[in-house]
Amino acid sequence: MYFIFFTGTAGAGKTTIVKEFRDYLIDQEMDVATINLDPAVENLPYTPDFDVRDYVDAFEVMQRYQLGPNTSLIVSIDLVLSKAGEIKKEIDEIEANYVLVDTPGQVELFAYRDTGRLISSLIAGENRAVNVFLMDSFLAKEARSYVSLLLLSSAIKFRLNLPQVNVLSKADLLSEKELENIKSWGEGEKIVDDLGTIDEYSFELVKTIVENLDSPPIPVSSVTDFGFDELYAEVQKVLAGGEDYLTEENNPRI
Amino acid sequence: MYFIFFTGTAGAGKTTIVKEFRDYLIDQEMDVATINLDPAVENLPYTPDFDVRDYVDAFEVMQRYQLGPNTSLIVSIDLVLSKAGEIKKEIDEIEANYVLVDTPGQVELFAYRDTGRLISSLIAGENRAVNVFLMDSFLAKEARSYVSLLLLSSAIKFRLNLPQVNVLSKADLLSEKELENIKSWGEGEKIVDDLGTIDEYSFELVKTIVENLDSPPIPVSSVTDFGFDELYAEVQKVLAGGEDYLTEENNPRI
Repeated sequence: MYFIFFTGTAGAGKTTIVKEFRDYLIDQEMDVATINLDPAVENLPYTPDFDVRDYVDAFEVMQRYQLGPNTSLIVSIDLVLSKAGEIKKEIDEIEANYVLVDTPGQVELFAYRDTGRLISSLIAGENRAVNVFLMDSFLAKEARSYVSLLLLSSAIKFRLNLPQVNVLSKADLLSEKELENIKSWGEGEKIVDDLGTIDEYSFELVKTIVENLDSPPIPVSSVTDFGFDELYAEVQKVLAGGEDYLTEENNPRI
Repeated sequence: MYFIFFTGTAGAGKTTIVKEFRDYLIDQEMDVATINLDPAVENLPYTPDFDVRDYVDAFEVMQRYQLGPNTSLIVSIDLVLSKAGEIKKEIDEIEANYVLVDTPGQVELFAYRDTGRLISSLIAGENRAVNVFLMDSFLAKEARSYVSLLLLSSAIKFRLNLPQVNVLSKADLLSEKELENIKSWGEGEKIVDDLGTIDEYSFELVKTIVENLDSPPIPVSSVTDFGFDELYAEVQKVLAGGEDYLTEENNPRI
């Protein structure tokens, strides 16, 4: 069983890609299940095999405890942890080749509260897992935001400790020229030119990111299924262990 | 007039430090004003000179439009932009040496919706501004999360395009040993050892971050005012233009 988590900033298209990528895998005759881990999602375009809202619903939490929107989101995420045992038990009953996991609307709540990290390692268990990080094309078409999203992606990777694949979501909203432009950044060209004035620390960071990026973000559209073949191939590669991790033995020291 | 923005993940202590750092500056006989830009904050321990809730209140938005907690937060942040003209006009009337700006509970909503970037550049205008990024000590005491927060800090810096100072908030919650440990990471020692197994991309990123960090995060406590002198000195240095920005002429190319 393979777990594929979908993370990204609010509005990056996590829920939509979970639905469309599920349909795509089913079309390939794969056995697929879906999990919703967002206690605050209002409408789901798919019927999840496991829904965290059966245990914690942010709307109910808000009303029951008379909380404001911000507090109720945080409390809901934290409450999920108190149900971890029951959740794990229910998820263990799912049988499928691929389990697609939809995460909370705001990646920060998933990544920087304890819940996200603990629940994700708990539900993936001994199975292989990958995190698909969605970079919203609307933001990524601007050079500074492109770099910012790559840094955010790396930040999430360090925190969740899962192998990660970057996706340029909603690529259908980009003009051909914008897409070409982003692709040229991914291949290391002209990103520094397009960034304008940056300080030396930022310059070194950009250089490291561009020079060491395993593979550029994959442009994907959940409207046209554009890029789903590439995404599937990359996810397969990572799940098969294609990504090299440094072991303690060959880990060079700074 | 100098603008000091305070950003950080939910619970990092933004609101508390705004209050305590304001009191600290007043004790130094500075002329200080405060701005609240969080439409969803429920209680403020200080009376702001400008409060965005006078224009957009997330609680009201939620009730009026019958929205869930997540949607109401996003809608509220986006609505702030529609009031930008009036907000700018009211803020322009503030007179103070230092204006401390409290930002939305979740840094993601401030940094990755258009509102944060536009409102922050609008209200700072031609004045010098600095962003104080709070790294929650509770998270930062673990090596992977420490690196993750530094990456998140860089991601925010790229997106907001303001000079930035990193602060280790709630440092009073750390044991002496934990604090020493974090300090040794900031100075470039043993962080790679403490990270355990990482892939090559992550290794290069860590190396770049550690080697190029201008100054390590400043441990600060809003309970004891510990570190406020250092924070003030660093903020002053940045506001005085002590941070070098590469100009187009001396910007080396990758």
